[in-house]
Amino acid sequence: MNIPAVSFIARSGTGKTTLVAGVIAALKQRGYRVGALKHDAYKFEIDHPGKDSHRFTAAGADTMLITSSAKLALVRQHAVSPPVEELLESYFGDVDIVLTEGFKQSGLPKIEVHRSACGHDLLSRGETSDPTLLAVATDTDLALDVPVLDLNDPGSVADFVEGHFLA
Amino acid sequence: MNIPAVSFIARSGTGKTTLVAGVIAALKQRGYRVGALKHDAYKFEIDHPGKDSHRFTAAGADTMLITSSAKLALVRQHAVSPPVEELLESYFGDVDIVLTEGFKQSGLPKIEVHRSACGHDLLSRGETSDPTLLAVATDTDLALDVPVLDLNDPGSVADFVEGHFLA
Repeated sequence: MNIPAVSFIARSGTGKTTLVAGVIAALKQRGYRVGALKHDAYKFEIDHPGKDSHRFTAAGADTMLITSSAKLALVRQHAVSPPVEELLESYFGDVDIVLTEGFKQSGLPKIEVHRSACGHDLLSRGETSDPTLLAVATDTDLALDVPVLDLNDPGSVADFVEGHFLA
Repeated sequence: MNIPAVSFIARSGTGKTTLVAGVIAALKQRGYRVGALKHDAYKFEIDHPGKDSHRFTAAGADTMLITSSAKLALVRQHAVSPPVEELLESYFGDVDIVLTEGFKQSGLPKIEVHRSACGHDLLSRGETSDPTLLAVATDTDLALDVPVLDLNDPGSVADFVEGHFLA
């Protein structure tokens, strides 16, 4: 199994999450099944006190799953986050493409999100050149060895992702 | 793979969730890896507006996963909830035991939670007798063909679960 996946990387403040959400919506409109995978450097909270699901997690459940007719939610405790390849394999077998955020150090193909107001240098084209970079989405003119996409047009970024991974 | 699982069933208002949380805590103290699995008849919300994870789900992501160094959370949309056996197989391969809530119609072994203030009849011992009933946890005296456990002593219910599934 090899799930197509592309990781959006950026410095903070570029509007990466807004772009990823826009690309998800555009790909969904085209009929694809889409996964989203995010690495969070902080200890995020998704579950909330007072909910039964939270009571089980608070009681120490290593894995908590709640399911309804519409969706399921899983919270699994771990000592260290599994590698991105393992997460893709374990959880995304039923989608056409996965858009990931973060995972800068992984071998996944990447789109760097860049905004001129946040500085002109790129994470992936600095002292070293990241060979996994596929394209850059930006709001300015950049002369690069990879395609330059419009940060403010998620549809055109979806076109690129579709052409590269789903054609 | 055959994950030991026991389902806690009850009429509403018996304190089932409190008991399940207490049994989880007791089994964790004894060193077991414990899973919790709940069927929710309503459209539960676990994710919340404003979070990045929610933005991806709101954009239409079929599967959303967020991972940190401490845990991962997954939200997966579906048209119908998978059977409990499939959920156990897919998500609980790394625990010693799963405590489930609901799934009354499943073939899982069951513990009925009963409280005298909520009426004296049992779900599993009415016009028909549910052969999957293992025990009843109650706060009153009941004459039954299965062991009667103390609703208010999660440690003793954990003893029963441990003896039956983990010995």
